[in-house]
Amino acid sequence: MNIKMGVAKAGIKPSGDYDILVLKFKPSPYSVVLTQNSLAAAPVLYDRMVREIQEEISAIVVNSGNANAATGEKGLENAEKMAEIVSEGFDIEKEEVLVFSTGVIGVQLPMDKVEKGIEEALNNMQELDLELAARAISTTDSFPKYYETTGEIDGKTFSIKGIAKGAGMIHPNMATMLAYIFTDVKIDKELLDRATKLVVERSFNSIDVDGCESTNDSFLVVATGETDVEINEENKTYFAKKLLEVATELAKMIVKDGEGATKLIQINVHQAKDKQEAKSVGEAIALSNLFKTAMFGNDPNWGRILSAVGQLHLDIDFSNVKLYIGDFLLYSGEPMDFDRKAAEEYLKNNREVTIDLYLGRGEADWTYYTCDLTYKYIEINAEYTT
Amino acid sequence: MNIKMGVAKAGIKPSGDYDILVLKFKPSPYSVVLTQNSLAAAPVLYDRMVREIQEEISAIVVNSGNANAATGEKGLENAEKMAEIVSEGFDIEKEEVLVFSTGVIGVQLPMDKVEKGIEEALNNMQELDLELAARAISTTDSFPKYYETTGEIDGKTFSIKGIAKGAGMIHPNMATMLAYIFTDVKIDKELLDRATKLVVERSFNSIDVDGCESTNDSFLVVATGETDVEINEENKTYFAKKLLEVATELAKMIVKDGEGATKLIQINVHQAKDKQEAKSVGEAIALSNLFKTAMFGNDPNWGRILSAVGQLHLDIDFSNVKLYIGDFLLYSGEPMDFDRKAAEEYLKNNREVTIDLYLGRGEADWTYYTCDLTYKYIEINAEYTT
Repeated sequence: MNIKMGVAKAGIKPSGDYDILVLKFKPSPYSVVLTQNSLAAAPVLYDRMVREIQEEISAIVVNSGNANAATGEKGLENAEKMAEIVSEGFDIEKEEVLVFSTGVIGVQLPMDKVEKGIEEALNNMQELDLELAARAISTTDSFPKYYETTGEIDGKTFSIKGIAKGAGMIHPNMATMLAYIFTDVKIDKELLDRATKLVVERSFNSIDVDGCESTNDSFLVVATGETDVEINEENKTYFAKKLLEVATELAKMIVKDGEGATKLIQINVHQAKDKQEAKSVGEAIALSNLFKTAMFGNDPNWGRILSAVGQLHLDIDFSNVKLYIGDFLLYSGEPMDFDRKAAEEYLKNNREVTIDLYLGRGEADWTYYTCDLTYKYIEINAEYTT
Repeated sequence: MNIKMGVAKAGIKPSGDYDILVLKFKPSPYSVVLTQNSLAAAPVLYDRMVREIQEEISAIVVNSGNANAATGEKGLENAEKMAEIVSEGFDIEKEEVLVFSTGVIGVQLPMDKVEKGIEEALNNMQELDLELAARAISTTDSFPKYYETTGEIDGKTFSIKGIAKGAGMIHPNMATMLAYIFTDVKIDKELLDRATKLVVERSFNSIDVDGCESTNDSFLVVATGETDVEINEENKTYFAKKLLEVATELAKMIVKDGEGATKLIQINVHQAKDKQEAKSVGEAIALSNLFKTAMFGNDPNWGRILSAVGQLHLDIDFSNVKLYIGDFLLYSGEPMDFDRKAAEEYLKNNREVTIDLYLGRGEADWTYYTCDLTYKYIEINAEYTT
């Protein structure tokens, strides 16, 4: 894929690390999913506008260190200005550029720094380096998040690569999740939109760190069409599966890097009535502070898991329910005798643990990812805020 | 009010403190609100049955130390057995007795101890002592919760008194909220049901500790009718106000005693479109881990508050929104300059703090109570579970 990248250290981030990223590619169909938080940041408002009118884009610009959120009219002007500088640099339309920000909320962008940074990035365009690009969009992430894979259709290879950031925290706002995925397949916008919608539900919309949705969450998929691989109704499922692989790996990295997390917890819900029910059950467990603290304490506490499910007020018959932590069957219509010591050891010795919940109501399943709730989470969010 | 009480130390609670409470009163109309958790405990299932068929009750029995939840058919038999022993002791119908339990989940009641304890309580009936009654239903509550008040209608006095427990934790389940309120007014069941419904929404359904609803949550109001004060359409609002006073004070005690809490936070939502919106906004803030940790850190973090509201996806125009912490105006359509140091001191020096949020959308308001999220919460729920 011919994607060019420019980065700069504009001095927006207190750390002094890279905080501007510009990506340039040929005009391409794209799909973008933006936060539904009604306090949506200025770049999100701007991107929503672009999404309404624009079939193809050819560049994105991202700054980290300042979210440009709760910044009113001025904030919107600044987001637009960022697109403008990039469009002038590449001699393209302003509406071909999407804008993203992440970082502190409620503070206007330092536009002198931002402008200089973007100019510098434009003057130093190079080949896409996933790791460096991921680093430029990071805030307090403890590692850069990127992943790539290839697929094959009719003997022809295509590739998918992506970067993400998330789960860090900057005063005074919550983590923002940003993810950008590029692929070189040929696909029309309508089919790409459908694939993206499916994939985002099973990946970025199925992870949780602390239940808080950000003002800036954004997920972008761009298909440059540089290979001969054409996605159609016949092979779309295979393509979506590969896209999901990349999105899921990136999403899992975000949870793994969740604030203070010591464990990545995979919650597999089976035998639900329908997919929506399966997802809501996974989410209810993932969001339970009692469950998350039990996981931190290596406590195979099935009561907290079933109770979180009960809180959904579904007409679940718990006499049909089975619950496993790892390979340990803890509940099967009634409390099971299990080797508590061994189950505790399983939780203690694994950085990635699995919950399997069988509802006995139908055929639908869903996987949700979450992390544990720890002292460190409190420390990060209560003490490091000034 | 002529309410008789019996307590016993049956040895269900590990602490060895009182764990059986029996209350006896004349046959009286009552209203009972029970958890909607679909993993509802056996006593809740039993009480639902009673509620269907019974206009008046004349006794309740409570055990603490074991929730009798997720205990299947056997659990239901045991709950019924508790009612039976009490009904035989007082020579009343079994259906005149409501049963409640709180404590560990997924373990059958030690019925030999329970039966002996109830017998002992029945053999030692005395005048109602609110503090002792509250103590007998407590689990890990750090103080007994009770409150009483009087009212006056047409020169005649009536009284309302109540006990509650909650926010403690017993392995391996979450806190359960139990509350029982008694009044000596004359009121028919239909009017009492309406008053109770109103009151529970504004009190026990407007508090949060950690977002987790229990399998055993129960709220009971009994009106013995021993005074000449008759509640009718004219004076019902005054009566409901007095009932709300008792319920709110008990509810606030639960939040104050929330696991690890250092602060009681009162969230006043103003100018919402309707009451439901006002409540949902208060709840969204109360449930935000990021907000709760900021409060623990004495951080006047308005971004986390507005973002939690934004997460409801309402069409709120934030340019009309005003937000105060204490007397400090932090946001008014845009970020305000405020004395950060003084606001931090306000949060630091007060055990009870107030948030006032004006939505600029209508006339409805709501008050929600929550507590901060602290190291101690993690400690209690991660480390003290085995």
